[in-house]
Parts: sequence; structure tokens; C-alpha cells
Amino acid sequence: MSKIDYNLKLIKGIAFDVDGVLSPATVPMDSDGIPCRMANLRDGYSMVQAVKCGYHLALISGADTQAVRRRFEIIGINTDDMYLGSLDKVTALNRWMQQHSLQPQEVAYVGDDMPDIEPMRLVGLSVCPADAATDVLAVASYISPVNGGYGVARDLIEEIMKAQGTWESTTKAFGQ
Amino acid sequence: MSKIDYNLKLIKGIAFDVDGVLSPATVPMDSDGIPCRMANLRDGYSMVQAVKCGYHLALISGADTQAVRRRFEIIGINTDDMYLGSLDKVTALNRWMQQHSLQPQEVAYVGDDMPDIEPMRLVGLSVCPADAATDVLAVASYISPVNGGYGVARDLIEEIMKAQGTWESTTKAFGQ
Amino acid sequence: MSKIDYNLKLIKGIAFDVDGVLSPATVPMDSDGIPCRMANLRDGYSMVQAVKCGYHLALISGADTQAVRRRFEIIGINTDDMYLGSLDKVTALNRWMQQHSLQPQEVAYVGDDMPDIEPMRLVGLSVCPADAATDVLAVASYISPVNGGYGVARDLIEEIMKAQGTWESTTKAFGQ
Amino acid sequence: MSKIDYNLKLIKGIAFDVDGVLSPATVPMDSDGIPCRMANLRDGYSMVQAVKCGYHLALISGADTQAVRRRFEIIGINTDDMYLGSLDKVTALNRWMQQHSLQPQEVAYVGDDMPDIEPMRLVGLSVCPADAATDVLAVASYISPVNGGYGVARDLIEEIMKAQGTWESTTKAFGQ
Repeated sequence: MSKIDYNLKLIKGIAFDVDGVLSPATVPMDSDGIPCRMANLRDGYSMVQAVKCGYHLALISGADTQAVRRRFEIIGINTDDMYLGSLDKVTALNRWMQQHSLQPQEVAYVGDDMPDIEPMRLVGLSVCPADAATDVLAVASYISPVNGGYGVARDLIEEIMKAQGTWESTTKAFGQ
Repeated sequence: MSKIDYNLKLIKGIAFDVDGVLSPATVPMDSDGIPCRMANLRDGYSMVQAVKCGYHLALISGADTQAVRRRFEIIGINTDDMYLGSLDKVTALNRWMQQHSLQPQEVAYVGDDMPDIEPMRLVGLSVCPADAATDVLAVASYISPVNGGYGVARDLIEEIMKAQGTWESTTKAFGQ
Repeated sequence: MSKIDYNLKLIKGIAFDVDGVLSPATVPMDSDGIPCRMANLRDGYSMVQAVKCGYHLALISGADTQAVRRRFEIIGINTDDMYLGSLDKVTALNRWMQQHSLQPQEVAYVGDDMPDIEPMRLVGLSVCPADAATDVLAVASYISPVNGGYGVARDLIEEIMKAQGTWESTTKAFGQ
Repeated sequence: MSKIDYNLKLIKGIAFDVDGVLSPATVPMDSDGIPCRMANLRDGYSMVQAVKCGYHLALISGADTQAVRRRFEIIGINTDDMYLGSLDKVTALNRWMQQHSLQPQEVAYVGDDMPDIEPMRLVGLSVCPADAATDVLAVASYISPVNGGYGVARDLIEEIMKAQGTWESTTKAFGQ
């Protein structure tokens, strides 16, 4: 029923790369040449709902700026689950999975570039944006129809939560 | 005659969500991770004209930044009609409609995400951008051809004012 | 030979609106809600060449920010030819044409929204971007294939200068 | 096998224009009207890998801002190979090629506008983005499928390194 060919009911945790996934590949820079990450607010909405419903969310990224930390603190990701400035994504992913007793088939990983390929191979469901690197497109089990930074997290979270019946419950909470 | 299947002559007031409607879903962040909303200047032009012609405009949004308040103060929206930082959009919408004695069929509401669905059900004309959330696309009575932040308000206001014959009068005022 | 159905050899001056023409319709805002205009660098290149070749360029815009003034000062537009914060575009256009003894058929005007319609009617060649307002699209003598802020000035200036044989001379100056 | 009709095994050095190539043609401005260049992070990834593998990279650009210098210092381009604020690109290109003993057929140059045409004629492989100026599109030996600022460097570097068998070695280094 889902457009994703995976048993989505298994998923308990999702790990996200930041650049090119939660933020677009092309972004402004500050005066010191540091990329200023952007945010997609519909991604944010779904991440808040996922946290509320008890899903484990992680950031595993070479990026490490105050803006990114604060943005995702507000969204509800635990500081311990933010592996920022991460040079070794496989170690970060394994540590996060162990800390939350997550099995590979219970985990989705979303990445867009070469450093994401090894982590993608370690989990049950590997996802990338439509504009991911050629080699990443070749290994992803699901290619989201949207570009990085323009709703990839929302697309995935909505599919998972709808498959598990947790999306509607959050919707119905509104307007009460 | 209009591309909107609704008796547009009835509309006296329009309530807008901000994120993903008047501002794009993907935006820059400040150094504290707060999303920096963007503005569409053709939206702005039409909102100024609508205010001048006596239409009631409201903002009903979880967003609450100084930039948003100032932008729409300049455009002419009353501070009392800006329901920012709003966690309960239905209550905000009902209060605004009561204060201006607006009946549901006289009101259009424009939203893009889950918290907008209940308010959309309370008004005569529910509108969303082309890139709205799946569930919002399913309930909207009119889907604008443009993405959020790229002219949704303009598209709607122009249709309403043209249906009521108020658009041409504002145009003719120029160049005099 | 040109894609523009006008005797381009007549053109001696070009007046530009800023918002939605030289800068995109959707832009960031500063913390006070003031739109931060953007710049297209290929537009800029062609405007510099046009100034060097003696064409008269003007800005006629409701926008009036330091960033806009400085950007176009660097490009070489005379301060006297920047009609910024302009509420009456027809008066501004007429004054500029008189000061430079420009006849209507010698002038192109580029605009995207309602306040540009009257000025567009006063000149020989009226131009708008692909994403201009519906009413502007209806009156423009040439609709550029690109959106406002993404190369409209470049498209027009290149057509004019190529028709007049002034474009190649600027090109050949490079690399010497 | 490559989509680029050139013997890519010859390439030892790549020179990049900045505006409209590594950064989009349309960018924000600071309050003094100076264009704020943007960065594509997948471009950046491939440039880091190219530097690590011993390719010579240069910037030859009229742009000269601290943000650009810092960004590409971090990426690993030598300060001596950054010809910023460059008014004479041919001289800059020739000096860079001489300093690194690069023959024309060993060099790729990526540009998008008129000042890039002469340098493009001096090297073996001339490249431009999909949205380059008309005259540049006409002389480029390879037109990348992406617009300037949205992955042109990545597209080219990946093609070159894959043709030379150096891309896979960098990939395999991850996750160890």
C-alpha cells in the first residue's frame, strides 16, 4: 500500500544526515564561509510528531553549527542523539543503535552523499533525496520524490507513521 | 468564470497560515536555529489592495517572529488580527470571525499542513498551495497552482477581487 | 532575427522595476520584516556593459534600501536615474525620459506588477518576466522566458545590444 | 563511457569561475549591496576528494569576498591558486598553469559568462552550467545538466575521477 517497498511497521528509529537531506545541498554562507543550513517546516512538523509518538530520531552529520543544534533541540531530538561534526558515520550509527537497542531492520537511514553509503548498508531501510549523488541513488532502497531540504524527512516519516497507524492519531489531536 | 469552484462574491475575509503559505516551506535559519520567514512581494501587493478595499485579513500561525509582525503591519493587517504563536488555530479562527461578524461562507482559509485541516473545515472556501501536505491537498476545496511562499495569496486574492469587481478599481488608481 | 518583435535598434534607454524584475518576487526578510533584495550576477554583467556603451539605465521602484542603491551604484547607474521609494512610476518615468531626451520608441520598460502597467504603456517596448502578474503578462509586448530575478535584464540587454552590434565589442575586450 | 566527449584521463587540473558556477547566478546581498555567494555541499565534497587525490584546483573569479576565501581554504585550495578579484582571467589562468606545469589538454575550465570565453578557449576541456550565458553555451565543449551553484563542480569532478579510477578509492575510505 505504501510507495516504499519495505515492511514499514518494523521501523522504530530514523537517522538523518543534515546537509543535502534536512537542509538543501545549496545554501547561503556566513561571512566566514561557513554554510548556513536551512530548514523545511513540514519536515519539522513530522519530526515533532515522530518524537511525540516515541520514535527514535538521530542526526549523523559532518555539519556542526549552533543553528542546527538549536533547531533540532526545539524539535525534540535528544542532544545525545545528535552526532554532529561526525567524521565516522558508521561508528556513530552503531553507537546510536546500541544505546536504543535498535536492530538494523528497525532503522531507516537517510543520506545523500558518499559518506552515507556505508551507514545506508547497515540498516533495513536506506533512503535518499531525488537529487542525491549518483552512487547514493544506486544503493538506496527508496528514493524520495523530493530534493534534499525540500521535504524528504516529511515524506519518509509520513509513510512510516501512516503504515503504523500513528499518523492519524496525531492529526486528530488538532483542533481540540 | 473563475478557476475556483466557489461563489467568490461571498468572501469578505481571508485567514492565512504563514509557514508554507505566505513564506516557503524551506527557509534560512538564524544562528539560534529560528526559521527566517521569507516574503513574496506580489502577495504583498495584493494584500495591501485587499486591506484598502475593506477585506478582513488575518494571520493564524504557529510562527511568531518580529519580522513577520512588522512585515504584515506594514501591509496593513491589524495587530488584533495576527494570531501568531497560535497553538489552537480553531479557537483563533472562531474568535477572529466573531470579532468581525464573519459567517463561514464569507471566509477563505489558506493552510498547508496538519494543524490547518480543522480550520479549513470551518470555512466556506479552503485553499492550499500546490506543495501542501498530502492530507491537506485531500481536503482543500481549491489547490493553488503555485507553491507556498511563491504567490498563493496573490492567486487567491486576485481571483476573489476580480470576481467582485474590486481588482480593476485598484489597478486604475495607478498612474494618476 | 531577434526573438523580440520590435525594432531593437531604436532603444537607447531601459528602465527597470526592482522587485520581481531585477530581484525575485520571493526574498528573505531582515529582522524588521524589510524584504532583502537579491541580485543576479549575469544581469549585473550586462548592465555594466550597457552603461559602458552609453545606454541609459534607470531604476523605477517602490523599493528603497541601501543594498539596492549600492549594488546599482557599483554597476554604474547614476544616482539621479534611481527613482527608488517611487509611489508614482509614471511621473518618474517621464522625468527620466525628459532628462535624457528619450522618445517613447527609444525606451524599454521592464515590470512585473500592477504599478508597472501604466509605465509599460508609455514606452515603445514593454517587457515582463515569465512569472509576472496576470494583468502584466496581458499587456507586455515581450515576455522574457525567465522569472523575475533570474536573468530578465540579461535576456533583454543581450537582445538589444546584439541587434545594435554593441554586444560583440564588449566581449572582445576580454582577455586582452 | 563518460557523458563527456573528451579523454578525461588527461585532466590534472580544474579552474573554476565562482559566480554562476560554484555559486548560483542569483544570490542574496548584504546591506552594502555586495552579493553573498552560496555553496553547494556536494560540490564541496568532491573538491575535497580531488585535492586529496592530488588534482590541482584553482578559482579564477571577479568575486573576492572573505566568505569565498574561507570556504575554499577549508576545502583545501591553496591561497596561491585563488585568483580572486581577477579582472584578467587569461593572465590568471596562464600563470596558474605555468606554476603547476599544466599543459592545456590537462586542464578543464568551468565558466558561465563572457569573461570566461577566452579562458575556455585556452584549455582542453571547457565546461559550463546549463544556465550559462548564450555565448558561453555556444563555445563550451561540455554543458553540465545542472545550473550554476547546484552541482556543476560535482558533476565534472565525479566524471573525471571515475574515468581515472580515483573516485572509488575515496569512497571506499569511508566507514573504515
